Amino acid sequence: MNTLDLLVRSIARLPGLGKKSATRIAYHILTNDRSEAQRLAELLHTLHDTIRRCSICGSFTESDPCDVCTDQGRDRSTICVVEQPQDVAALEASSEYHGLYHVLGGVIAPIEGVGPGDLTIGRLVRRAGESGIQEVIIATNPTVEGDTTALYVARQLETVAGVTVTRLALGLPVGGDLEYADRLTLARSLRGRTSL
Amino acid sequence: MNTLDLLVRSIARLPGLGKKSATRIAYHILTNDRSEAQRLAELLHTLHDTIRRCSICGSFTESDPCDVCTDQGRDRSTICVVEQPQDVAALEASSEYHGLYHVLGGVIAPIEGVGPGDLTIGRLVRRAGESGIQEVIIATNPTVEGDTTALYVARQLETVAGVTVTRLALGLPVGGDLEYADRLTLARSLRGRTSL
Repeated sequence: MNTLDLLVRSIARLPGLGKKSATRIAYHILTNDRSEAQRLAELLHTLHDTIRRCSICGSFTESDPCDVCTDQGRDRSTICVVEQPQDVAALEASSEYHGLYHVLGGVIAPIEGVGPGDLTIGRLVRRAGESGIQEVIIATNPTVEGDTTALYVARQLETVAGVTVTRLALGLPVGGDLEYADRLTLARSLRGRTSL
Repeated sequence: MNTLDLLVRSIARLPGLGKKSATRIAYHILTNDRSEAQRLAELLHTLHDTIRRCSICGSFTESDPCDVCTDQGRDRSTICVVEQPQDVAALEASSEYHGLYHVLGGVIAPIEGVGPGDLTIGRLVRRAGESGIQEVIIATNPTVEGDTTALYVARQLETVAGVTVTRLALGLPVGGDLEYADRLTLARSLRGRTSL
């Protein structure tokens, strides 16, 4: 198998890419300037050495603890619990949240062999118990596993005194269309209706 | 800008990928085994040194001349003219063609500043003049530029004695639906109808 086939196969293994798009990308890289391929190679080569997990919140960072955990300008009374590091980036992009984060590292999924012990729930309970923490927002995905995990985490946090546990609101997405909303979402958005 | 952002930006520059899919891929690479990232890095690093253009047909190869050009088992009386090296791979995958190839390196596109002199047309005419060549199949894309280039190439080949110039058939794609075929394709498929 030649280098080009190996490259196509390697690219096709990435999420969202099939053989056709991988081939297109490989030929694009090959046809284009060598410097672009070199830069991408360099970034991939150093990636795992440059970026590590923050020892406090568990999100990706180049310096440990991460920028969010060390930022004294943020609201240090709130912890937002997410499944994956990329969720931190998504929430940061919303510019709505200014507190701290905690990355669980996944969700409870017995079928895939992921139990509560595989997640950073113990560390979250310890962090929630630290002085000053008033609220823990559980922002796991609104899926069966995400909801189960949210409930489990909430129950673990019951032992921590003085901390309110909340969950992200469910409802229609902004710009969404009532006609095309699934009935579960519509039901939740009715139940969670707010006064105007 | 940190390494992760640089990687996302670098991936998003690849064809068919936007910022969202690039982010997803970057996090996937980061979350997964380091060895996979290393292998991809290594492939990208050596790509341009390992793979060059065949000095005869112009397609990508690890050894010059390429496997097709040196294969004495192939039909050496036919040359199939394509725009890009990836078209060679597509035709090879069809298992229908067993002759030689010639990669033009693009199409005549005056707006983008590509003239006939930027393509390997001169080399094609010389190859077509070599002993034994009986047919040149022009397999440029059925687009305005591809058709223009096909006509131009055909005219250049008029000077070569004893060589038939043909063009790939136009018609309905296999598995296609008459209802959804555009009228130009339908017209061409009528005009080129074959007897049953």
